[in-house]
Amino acid sequence: MNQDAISVIVDSIVKQLKTQDLDDMTLGVAKRLIEKVEQKARDMGMRIVVAVSNKAGHPVAVECMDGAYIASYDIALNKAFTVVALKMPTVQLKPLAQPGAPLYGIQFTNNGKIVIFGGGVPLRNKSGEIIGGLGVSGGTEEQDTDLANYGEAVFHDCL
Amino acid sequence: MNQDAISVIVDSIVKQLKTQDLDDMTLGVAKRLIEKVEQKARDMGMRIVVAVSNKAGHPVAVECMDGAYIASYDIALNKAFTVVALKMPTVQLKPLAQPGAPLYGIQFTNNGKIVIFGGGVPLRNKSGEIIGGLGVSGGTEEQDTDLANYGEAVFHDCL
Amino acid sequence: MNQDAISVIVDSIVKQLKTQDLDDMTLGVAKRLIEKVEQKARDMGMRIVVAVSNKAGHPVAVECMDGAYIASYDIALNKAFTVVALKMPTVQLKPLAQPGAPLYGIQFTNNGKIVIFGGGVPLRNKSGEIIGGLGVSGGTEEQDTDLANYGEAVFHDCL
Amino acid sequence: MNQDAISVIVDSIVKQLKTQDLDDMTLGVAKRLIEKVEQKARDMGMRIVVAVSNKAGHPVAVECMDGAYIASYDIALNKAFTVVALKMPTVQLKPLAQPGAPLYGIQFTNNGKIVIFGGGVPLRNKSGEIIGGLGVSGGTEEQDTDLANYGEAVFHDCL
Repeated sequence: MNQDAISVIVDSIVKQLKTQDLDDMTLGVAKRLIEKVEQKARDMGMRIVVAVSNKAGHPVAVECMDGAYIASYDIALNKAFTVVALKMPTVQLKPLAQPGAPLYGIQFTNNGKIVIFGGGVPLRNKSGEIIGGLGVSGGTEEQDTDLANYGEAVFHDCL
Repeated sequence: MNQDAISVIVDSIVKQLKTQDLDDMTLGVAKRLIEKVEQKARDMGMRIVVAVSNKAGHPVAVECMDGAYIASYDIALNKAFTVVALKMPTVQLKPLAQPGAPLYGIQFTNNGKIVIFGGGVPLRNKSGEIIGGLGVSGGTEEQDTDLANYGEAVFHDCL
Repeated sequence: MNQDAISVIVDSIVKQLKTQDLDDMTLGVAKRLIEKVEQKARDMGMRIVVAVSNKAGHPVAVECMDGAYIASYDIALNKAFTVVALKMPTVQLKPLAQPGAPLYGIQFTNNGKIVIFGGGVPLRNKSGEIIGGLGVSGGTEEQDTDLANYGEAVFHDCL
Repeated sequence: MNQDAISVIVDSIVKQLKTQDLDDMTLGVAKRLIEKVEQKARDMGMRIVVAVSNKAGHPVAVECMDGAYIASYDIALNKAFTVVALKMPTVQLKPLAQPGAPLYGIQFTNNGKIVIFGGGVPLRNKSGEIIGGLGVSGGTEEQDTDLANYGEAVFHDCL
């Protein structure tokens, strides 16, 4: 095998490694995502707490914008946990957890860490695997849901 | 500029600073408010627990009238926390936290510290900034709400 | 039986009832005690939290002097519980709860509500029955113990 | 008094107010501090969790460096709470909380939120008032203490 052939192989491998999917949340990625979501919140005149968890549901980074609700810290953190723990957006869990619905009661099973209203989304790598969660709290449920969806939409730009 | 002019200016500034708004709850203010709310409760033939928190949601003073419910201590304290943590009266949170409503489930997200029925109001200084919270528990929801609203109405007389 | 005889009997009963021992803590008594302990703390240049419980260990009144430690709220409250729950001053529980001592581990048995350092004393009525507890937190252990002992010493003046 | 004199006075007051000390932690300041502490940790080959609380002990920002201990999140957060709640570095609380020492048992009094080993320091504004807390966890106690002290030393550069 000549030098040229080796170069082609090496370049190809390096390129593939470089484009490899992220396997779990990193602090760098989490911070870039939080920055984008906070910028959006600022544009909307909101003061929010943003939390990002890794694929185990453990927090990676949490930021409380000045003037955010005190209660929002726990809520954002728990949303970021819920979406990884149950592999779905919190807004999708919402109807399932209402009285009479299939999962009613799930909000009591995990030491108060399951949130059943909008503002949390799982974060997926390019292969579609969940590698973390995003939790937003600070506005109406609709605003938090919008911000979380925004975060999901721009997540791949943060990788 | 002569000394007299300077004195006038200085006095004016000092006076203005002295009449500045209260920045956070103090024990003295909390006790005067509790006294008024308890007097009102006494007039209504009620036995209540009254709690006042500071702007961080930490308790400043709690009083249990003789014969009040044992359960009312935690409820009053948590109402005083809730109104600061979410910046709204608990009676306003009530419809939002019903099954099917946007924030159903928020009563489970903060270690049991969020109360979703009437009897808690945020307390604002003269500039309108929240500097603490009032939590009342011991009667019907309507009575507790009335007493909390009464407390809010007389709060500026306690400053 | 004539009117005079009846009067003597009634007066005697009323007098006896009036001098009857207090059976359980009241808010009025608790507040008078707290006032005295706070005044003493003020004289010592201290900023403390003072809690008074009833004979069931439930809080009756808690006050946080401006600038007291945030942590002191739970500590004072738990001291007031501990002394009723175990019928001894916390400083007396201290040696019993050290590693190797008879009650080592008691600090873990009651959901973190047992305090094993000075600053809590049971409060007794004139017959010597425990009718409540006093918990002080905010200084060194010695200062808190001194203040609690002071509170115990002046307690009968508050009845 | 002429207009010029008034202008000079007004400007002087405005300038003084503008250069006033920070009254409470902000997200911007917290992030600048975390960045510096993480850089130092990176230089030392460490992977840590860094938490910053405000003057009420509530978290403002938390970051977990890739590969940090899972347990370090709670520890860092609780260190940042402890130093504000008790107004001292955790390393200073350490000897006081040993078996036989005055405050042995304080580690159990506040729902597990009091940390009694090094790695937490209160953060003071230029006037010397505590406006927040820094909690570091991830290395040996000595390393965490060094990093917290480093954070304290560079804090005024973050204001």
